[in-house]
Amino acid sequence: MSNPDTVTMTGAQALVGTLADNGVTACFANPGTSEMHLVTALDGEPRIRSVLCLFEGVATGAADGFARVSGVPAMTLLHLGAGYLNAGANIHNAGRANSPMVNVIGDHAVPHLKYDAPLTSDIIGLAGPNSGWIKSANKVSDTGKLASEAFVASYGPKPGPISLLLPADSAWEEGGVKGPVVSAPSLREISGDRIEAAAAQIKTAAKPVIVMNGTALTEAGLLAAARLKAAGVRVLTDTFYAKMRRGAGVFAPERMQYFAEGAMADLEGTDLMVVAGTNLPVAFFSYPGKPSLLVPEGCSTLNLGGADSDSAATLARLADALGATKAAEPTVLKVPDMPEGELNAVSIGKSLARHMPENALVSDDGVSNGLMSYLPTQNAQPHDWMMLTGGAIGQGMPLALGAAIAAPDRKVICISGDGAGMYTNQALWSMAREGADVTTIVFVNHSYRILNIELYRTGAGNPGPTAKDMLSIGGPNINWVQLSEALGVPAAEATTAEGFDAALAAAIAAPGPRLIAAVVPG
Amino acid sequence: MSNPDTVTMTGAQALVGTLADNGVTACFANPGTSEMHLVTALDGEPRIRSVLCLFEGVATGAADGFARVSGVPAMTLLHLGAGYLNAGANIHNAGRANSPMVNVIGDHAVPHLKYDAPLTSDIIGLAGPNSGWIKSANKVSDTGKLASEAFVASYGPKPGPISLLLPADSAWEEGGVKGPVVSAPSLREISGDRIEAAAAQIKTAAKPVIVMNGTALTEAGLLAAARLKAAGVRVLTDTFYAKMRRGAGVFAPERMQYFAEGAMADLEGTDLMVVAGTNLPVAFFSYPGKPSLLVPEGCSTLNLGGADSDSAATLARLADALGATKAAEPTVLKVPDMPEGELNAVSIGKSLARHMPENALVSDDGVSNGLMSYLPTQNAQPHDWMMLTGGAIGQGMPLALGAAIAAPDRKVICISGDGAGMYTNQALWSMAREGADVTTIVFVNHSYRILNIELYRTGAGNPGPTAKDMLSIGGPNINWVQLSEALGVPAAEATTAEGFDAALAAAIAAPGPRLIAAVVPG
Repeated sequence: MSNPDTVTMTGAQALVGTLADNGVTACFANPGTSEMHLVTALDGEPRIRSVLCLFEGVATGAADGFARVSGVPAMTLLHLGAGYLNAGANIHNAGRANSPMVNVIGDHAVPHLKYDAPLTSDIIGLAGPNSGWIKSANKVSDTGKLASEAFVASYGPKPGPISLLLPADSAWEEGGVKGPVVSAPSLREISGDRIEAAAAQIKTAAKPVIVMNGTALTEAGLLAAARLKAAGVRVLTDTFYAKMRRGAGVFAPERMQYFAEGAMADLEGTDLMVVAGTNLPVAFFSYPGKPSLLVPEGCSTLNLGGADSDSAATLARLADALGATKAAEPTVLKVPDMPEGELNAVSIGKSLARHMPENALVSDDGVSNGLMSYLPTQNAQPHDWMMLTGGAIGQGMPLALGAAIAAPDRKVICISGDGAGMYTNQALWSMAREGADVTTIVFVNHSYRILNIELYRTGAGNPGPTAKDMLSIGGPNINWVQLSEALGVPAAEATTAEGFDAALAAAIAAPGPRLIAAVVPG
Repeated sequence: MSNPDTVTMTGAQALVGTLADNGVTACFANPGTSEMHLVTALDGEPRIRSVLCLFEGVATGAADGFARVSGVPAMTLLHLGAGYLNAGANIHNAGRANSPMVNVIGDHAVPHLKYDAPLTSDIIGLAGPNSGWIKSANKVSDTGKLASEAFVASYGPKPGPISLLLPADSAWEEGGVKGPVVSAPSLREISGDRIEAAAAQIKTAAKPVIVMNGTALTEAGLLAAARLKAAGVRVLTDTFYAKMRRGAGVFAPERMQYFAEGAMADLEGTDLMVVAGTNLPVAFFSYPGKPSLLVPEGCSTLNLGGADSDSAATLARLADALGATKAAEPTVLKVPDMPEGELNAVSIGKSLARHMPENALVSDDGVSNGLMSYLPTQNAQPHDWMMLTGGAIGQGMPLALGAAIAAPDRKVICISGDGAGMYTNQALWSMAREGADVTTIVFVNHSYRILNIELYRTGAGNPGPTAKDMLSIGGPNINWVQLSEALGVPAAEATTAEGFDAALAAAIAAPGPRLIAAVVPG
């Protein structure tokens, strides 16, 4: 193998070496023939840990989790257009989480493309819409330079996934040159004038509210939010956010409601809505006769920066401008009693609050059960909660895998619907292989339960047998314990609150991956 | 529920009713909130069988299998851009198989799109490159008309997947009007002049070869091919084709080799290459210093129509023009003895030849083991063989599901690599739910074995530990028996040729889905 510091470097080596020089330490990979030189380049790069995923959606979900926890993009290795498509839903989710990610997509050698071989596709076309930046390294001499560009581009202005295509000939030819070490752009700062103007408007508002996301959900951001709260501003997070610090010692903001009608009722009387680190709140789906924009009539709105801005700094400066010297009380630790009787999302949340260790990371793809487990963990040990941001279910287990790779010293808890978990069950195998310290809880209700709710809300009529079948994932019931153990992750089933509590305590006490199939009402 | 024949029809009802009027009888679905009105419209349409898939790649792979067997497109129901991305790899494969497919992609209500809700994406942009036709039914009154257009567009000129977007408001609003019953366009006919010219060139060639695909691989097409063979033309199929009639009583053409160097050696001395129903053969991947186009130097080439042409008719007319009155002998039935000893792809092929019932359908996603099982089945009972056409592994089990839905009276055999099977293992659950008569054989070698071969062929160097890890899917070994049973499909493991032979006989004798984990050398 060539020494990466000499002129005999291949394009693949230049690309991988450049990303490593820039601080990339993980690659979630699903390689094919066109990526063989990338595989051997990774083999020669000890600074990057390569994690094999048996489906590309696991790789990109894991890269998202890695970025949310470490703040640094991971590299993924995808096999041509088909690999990108498999990876795409979790790239979409990562885009909505503003997670930097460097997707390296192998392609045919440039002279081979015109022959339209079976795996050829228009990668630039299909990957473009979900790539903040996309280029193809069509010349071996460009591979390093473009890797530096790609790394920076993943940070923004709005952080998110980018795509770097690597044709096979650019990978295998000698003549690669490493690109520079570059500094990632900082998040945007809001002007003092806008902060002052916002403070003045808040002072005159009767019922002001701030809706926040981004760095506002870090410990520092939440301290600033607590000062706003003490100054009379209602503080809400977006319904779904990438990551928030929660639990004992941290101020707990409210959370925007999911269903439009609930959110609108909750916001009634609000006369000023300020947003920081996000956009104005919008209904997740549209429904006949229901609003899209979740802003009460007559309510003024004020934009203090979107996902490209440092909302923690914005909130602190806004609190200063308001003269907010006090802060609302932080959450106190309350350990619930052992839940008894029926196993459901609430009892699971209580057990989580009892057993989650300090500094745990939670990956929440719990769909219809997520909220009911979220609320009881409010007063648990301090932890970080991560949510499905883009609505494409099947993110929870991959995200947990990536989080565990980023933070091997922290316990990761994954909560997943059974429907959601089926999309990317291959993540369990990678957890087993990597010894990832993840306890996965699957809400087993044998149903796309959220859709049973949505069927009524959309007014789509009474479900007949075909419709009911389309929303049920029973018949046959999936045996999650068997499925998990088939993929190498020890598993247990729980059917009562007490049984689950004991199973959770045992799973958390054990190092490495475990799964609990939590049988909950459908 | 509205009566679909009155003016109170919703857009969803008009769309579904139009497709049913045109002969669509199956919908492979993975719905979400934005598709609830499509779900209830399907509920009211007894002519369409709805099959729930727990991952969208299963839905589109199944629609491909359905089309290959029935000749009629199935409808799929996909959830916005994220659902399309999950579906995308098997849409790519179906495109390369020239399988008509009507992908109905739900979208947000049109007035909701501008708010950029979390699941919003540029569906036209990302689905465009792999859609032969793509439109959005932005007005409820257009839903039926566009459904007719979409149905026709899936037939071509080149048959393949098309995309029809259905915004939620177009689905739920009243005012849908059914579109017309339309006739699918026929495949193109090659002009008599071109046939005559080809015959003249063949007569003067020393070593002519014809490479064929499409309808040439039907029983009628193969009879014409046998006449060409008897007239001195070497007859080859593409390396990968959508479906071919094989076995006793059918002429057996040769198959173009996969590896470029092998194909070029095999074709040495060929001075005329005619293609019908396909393009000139191309290497699947590019390799340093190896050719892309698999045509010997100095060999003349002649194009008698691509995937949009009726290659069976072309071959018959070409045989007439050559005055080829005789035909090469068809294959005779030869039942191999029970294989003994090591279980491997060859012994599996022999067992298949022993036990496959007449008229079986084979879905081959066997990757590195596929060919070695293909050859021994040459003299089996007459059957149809279907291949992975687009190179995106993870097609085999979904394709088998769709084939079984299309032909409930035929036994379907799926052969799949373990790496390939992991991509879309969710297909097993749908097989169980639908009672699909599929025997799935997984080649369990705990390895992306093809990549171990390709690593050497691409000259990517000697694999170190990281590279080896990236090509191995052991550590932990996947327990395919447990995985299959977790998803509702009874399974058995075989480790010897004799054990496999018995397991296969038992699986084929049983109605409904079965899986055999065939442990083969890595």
